[in-house]
Amino acid sequence: MIESRDPESVTDLTRQGVESAYALIKSKVKKTPVLTNESISTIATGSDEVPTTLFFKCENFQKGGAFKIRGATHALEKLRSEELDNGVITHSSGNHAQALAIAAKAKGVRAYIVMPSNSARPKIEATQSYGGHITFSGPTAPEREYVTETIRKKTNARLIPPYDHPHIILGQGTVLLELMSQTQEEYGHKLDAVIVPVGGGGLLAGCALAAHGTGVRVFAAEPALADDCSRGMETGQREPNVATTTVADGLRTPVGVINFPIIQKYVEKVFTVSEEEILAAMRLVLERMKIVVEPSAAVPLAVALSDRWKKDGVKGNIGIVFSGGNVDLDKIADLIKKP
Amino acid sequence: MIESRDPESVTDLTRQGVESAYALIKSKVKKTPVLTNESISTIATGSDEVPTTLFFKCENFQKGGAFKIRGATHALEKLRSEELDNGVITHSSGNHAQALAIAAKAKGVRAYIVMPSNSARPKIEATQSYGGHITFSGPTAPEREYVTETIRKKTNARLIPPYDHPHIILGQGTVLLELMSQTQEEYGHKLDAVIVPVGGGGLLAGCALAAHGTGVRVFAAEPALADDCSRGMETGQREPNVATTTVADGLRTPVGVINFPIIQKYVEKVFTVSEEEILAAMRLVLERMKIVVEPSAAVPLAVALSDRWKKDGVKGNIGIVFSGGNVDLDKIADLIKKP
Repeated sequence: MIESRDPESVTDLTRQGVESAYALIKSKVKKTPVLTNESISTIATGSDEVPTTLFFKCENFQKGGAFKIRGATHALEKLRSEELDNGVITHSSGNHAQALAIAAKAKGVRAYIVMPSNSARPKIEATQSYGGHITFSGPTAPEREYVTETIRKKTNARLIPPYDHPHIILGQGTVLLELMSQTQEEYGHKLDAVIVPVGGGGLLAGCALAAHGTGVRVFAAEPALADDCSRGMETGQREPNVATTTVADGLRTPVGVINFPIIQKYVEKVFTVSEEEILAAMRLVLERMKIVVEPSAAVPLAVALSDRWKKDGVKGNIGIVFSGGNVDLDKIADLIKKP
Repeated sequence: MIESRDPESVTDLTRQGVESAYALIKSKVKKTPVLTNESISTIATGSDEVPTTLFFKCENFQKGGAFKIRGATHALEKLRSEELDNGVITHSSGNHAQALAIAAKAKGVRAYIVMPSNSARPKIEATQSYGGHITFSGPTAPEREYVTETIRKKTNARLIPPYDHPHIILGQGTVLLELMSQTQEEYGHKLDAVIVPVGGGGLLAGCALAAHGTGVRVFAAEPALADDCSRGMETGQREPNVATTTVADGLRTPVGVINFPIIQKYVEKVFTVSEEEILAAMRLVLERMKIVVEPSAAVPLAVALSDRWKKDGVKGNIGIVFSGGNVDLDKIADLIKKP
């Protein structure tokens, strides 16, 4: 990942950088709606005197079903066309794979995607349907990296990492730019805070940059079973290891090297939630909002409804980022079954 | 239902009447989003030379989970406050019951709801949670009407029927007013046609009035298993009987007496679809759009994707009304199972 330490790019890691990214990708991604829901806001308010209104940014409706297309599109836009001649490559079993395939197709560029052979069938089919050239690898990180490096050397394709890269971070930050302006224009409110899920930290770091200087406070939401960001914030050291048992499969990655210091600097606090809280939030969203979010995307709402948030969080107008909606429909019923 | 034949009200059954209704209810109902979806529009286009773009009006996100709140709110707004003193009453096992409970609560009026004792538990709970006073009746229409009439006589509550009433029709028509203006303002397109589901015909008649004189062509979508509207249009006689076996439970009612002549006059054609087509459309919406629609609400999309529509329908910018999203989550998995 040489690109990710490119000093020229790194200087751009500011709110202005997010705005420039937005100018580049705006016409290529969907401006997803911001929804509200009275009954969920009432639950979030509870017995508080100050009412809480939640504003849900629906990146589950984004192209490819997740925010990832923003970063992928931005990364491709920032490369010169001769740098794209040999195609682009990544390894991912999830939303970044689909996003890169879509973004590359839109630019007429070949996308090589390395996926673990045990990836879920719908994700493989989706990546294929977007024109991605899939190579399967073994399931572990070293196996995936080995296959990726082999193809990269053979094809000279450009590596586009999923989160640990300035252009990816700036692209993902456009989620909050839109959420802030839509909340203002469509509802007449200024956000007091936003809760963003954290896995590798591309979305969180980007949103933190986008919020800087605006007065919007940024909080992170993480599964307790994959709490590397929370631990890292406490110790002051990036935690490179993370367990992979949480149902929130998009958040099973450690926070990236570039992402961590941004998060340390600009994110106020990381809240963790249990598996039960995540699934209850996912069910509530289906039931009351009539929309499908993947478990990872339900984590910020789970935070907003938790007792810890009521105690240490913020009241008022709270942005909730629904990061994606890619969930195996045949598994939904099992996931949301009432305990 | 004496009110529904009130000659003074009937004179209002015009596009202007829908606009006046909108002025009354606008601040009391949700302006639901209009979504698009590239992959579904691509499927709808098929091998046609003229591309079709579908614009989905998401009344599944409406208060109470369906468009019904529009008509109920309008009906209450049109009554003088002394006419509301004794409360309002209706019989319904579905979305109208919840809508009337919500609208009445907002006005501080008591709502009596007669529900068949075999109603689905989530619907009973929802109606109760909105403050509706429920009385159970036997499941047949005469039993329900008997109980309703008994309570009405005792309480002197005002009957608010679910669809066969001018104020209800005009209120429901506001769905299309919004869809047309949102498609223009947010996407820069004028609708060529709209496909609306038909059960009792409140929504369809209202939309037909709203479209009149605008150049937007109005089509109806109906389950083949409950095709009373389609048959009525062919014979020129309202068909008072309808089978109740379709999965689209909101469309198991015959078209109303006031509704039928409006539909005859302004609706171009009724398309019917099979149960399989309805469920495939519902699955597609969950999978690609990440939103929950109830089977009744999937019927217009099922039409847009059918061979009959490709042959006899309209290409271009087509509005699709997602009428509601109230479906038992525990049953979703069974409903959408791939055949």
